Amino acid sequence: MPNASLDNLCIHTITTKPWSIETAAAKFARAGVKGITVWRDTLAGRDIAQTGRLLRDHGLSVVSLCRGGFFPAATVADRAKAVDDNRKAIAEAHALGAPHVVLVCGAVPGQPLTESRKQILDGIAAVLPDCQASGVKLAIEPLHPMYADARSAVNTLGQANDMVQALRSPHVGVAVDVYHLWWDPALEQEIARCGRLKALLAYHVCDWRTPTIDFLNDRGLMGEGCIPLRQIRAWVEATGFRGFNEVEVFSTRLWAMDQDEYLMKIVQAYRDHV
Amino acid sequence: MPNASLDNLCIHTITTKPWSIETAAAKFARAGVKGITVWRDTLAGRDIAQTGRLLRDHGLSVVSLCRGGFFPAATVADRAKAVDDNRKAIAEAHALGAPHVVLVCGAVPGQPLTESRKQILDGIAAVLPDCQASGVKLAIEPLHPMYADARSAVNTLGQANDMVQALRSPHVGVAVDVYHLWWDPALEQEIARCGRLKALLAYHVCDWRTPTIDFLNDRGLMGEGCIPLRQIRAWVEATGFRGFNEVEVFSTRLWAMDQDEYLMKIVQAYRDHV
Repeated sequence: MPNASLDNLCIHTITTKPWSIETAAAKFARAGVKGITVWRDTLAGRDIAQTGRLLRDHGLSVVSLCRGGFFPAATVADRAKAVDDNRKAIAEAHALGAPHVVLVCGAVPGQPLTESRKQILDGIAAVLPDCQASGVKLAIEPLHPMYADARSAVNTLGQANDMVQALRSPHVGVAVDVYHLWWDPALEQEIARCGRLKALLAYHVCDWRTPTIDFLNDRGLMGEGCIPLRQIRAWVEATGFRGFNEVEVFSTRLWAMDQDEYLMKIVQAYRDHV
Repeated sequence: MPNASLDNLCIHTITTKPWSIETAAAKFARAGVKGITVWRDTLAGRDIAQTGRLLRDHGLSVVSLCRGGFFPAATVADRAKAVDDNRKAIAEAHALGAPHVVLVCGAVPGQPLTESRKQILDGIAAVLPDCQASGVKLAIEPLHPMYADARSAVNTLGQANDMVQALRSPHVGVAVDVYHLWWDPALEQEIARCGRLKALLAYHVCDWRTPTIDFLNDRGLMGEGCIPLRQIRAWVEATGFRGFNEVEVFSTRLWAMDQDEYLMKIVQAYRDHV
């Protein structure tokens, strides 16, 4: 059954990477998209508060800021630098009017995953005062296990939920991304648990292509792959989640398309498959 | 602490793919390798029983046959074909003198993973009479979640252990491969559980490179990546496992090397890192 309404459709700026944030905002609004998730690189050289107003003037909700994280590092100095960068991300989200920052938590190749996980908890705890002061939340995004070497030591929703419980802060929740989590036999029960923890802050959609030919930039548009999108969305909404469905696609192939045509494809794919 | 002894060193024929099985057997034996795991493609056109004798005449233990599996399919006819191929693999293992067949269980893109898992259980159950008659066992190999679309719907050791329990057969166990499982936060406890189930049949080693540039053929030689090999081996041996450490590396880069030099590197990497 197609989605008649686009009320919950959000697109990440990185999905239409060739466009500036100003172009993306105008085009998204004209296409009926209701939300935008902002990647920090698109803010370079802009007045952030003014950019937030521009987005809202287009009728767009600012859904989240991508991204903070990357807390683990080999030295104390580098871990302090990561904390500083996350404080900056929280300040940017506050200026932009984004309710939360998505965290790609980080990992150091060769450092035990248990140590990286400890450094992630320490890093999040170190920036919580900034969250309390600004009201900006943090959304831990568990990443696919194929990124456990260098991008995130948090690789299942169960681990993210465990971290939420360990941190016991109303400012820490989770971003559920189907690309990272669709394979997990515990996914349904962990989504339900995330809901009970009142921690489900964001829901990201795309698809997994067969074959996938690049570790980072070969995601599929919804309907191009094997992820049971309707099933997972039903699990997410069974928790009471009524937030945006955020289209986050990294794809060299799709970035090479005419982006106006691509935007129409995204809207259609959302109607048909999400 | 380096491994002084090569007593537990086994190499998969696919690791030195450019070599025929006859060449591999002679070279492995000369290098002090004690075990060989045979990939079925190397047996094409050979008398299998005679090849088994050749391997043993070189002083090599035949550790396992790779591989069976790929049980899920869209049609009844294709699932029956898969069962037939697995019966053939069991017969080949028996003729070769290999104690077990490693199973890459299979998945069908777009078919629910739960359905593929059911078809895997049904497929294994269908070939168990052949195992009972021949004494050949089956080793379920959980594959990395990045292969959940098309290669295996069994992606954690926990799932493999669950299947062993569901099948309740002395002829079904598990192959633990560090490449697929190293990231799993439940790995230590699931290895221990596998041991308690008396199901740990095989232990495969290689390494995970950063960055990894190909989904199939960019594995690292032990020491080239981030997998905590000594730690995982300690967990495996804590179960009482005293079997072979099987070097299974798919690598376009390493296959392009002089294979005699590569074999020396494998032996050294085994001494230094496994």
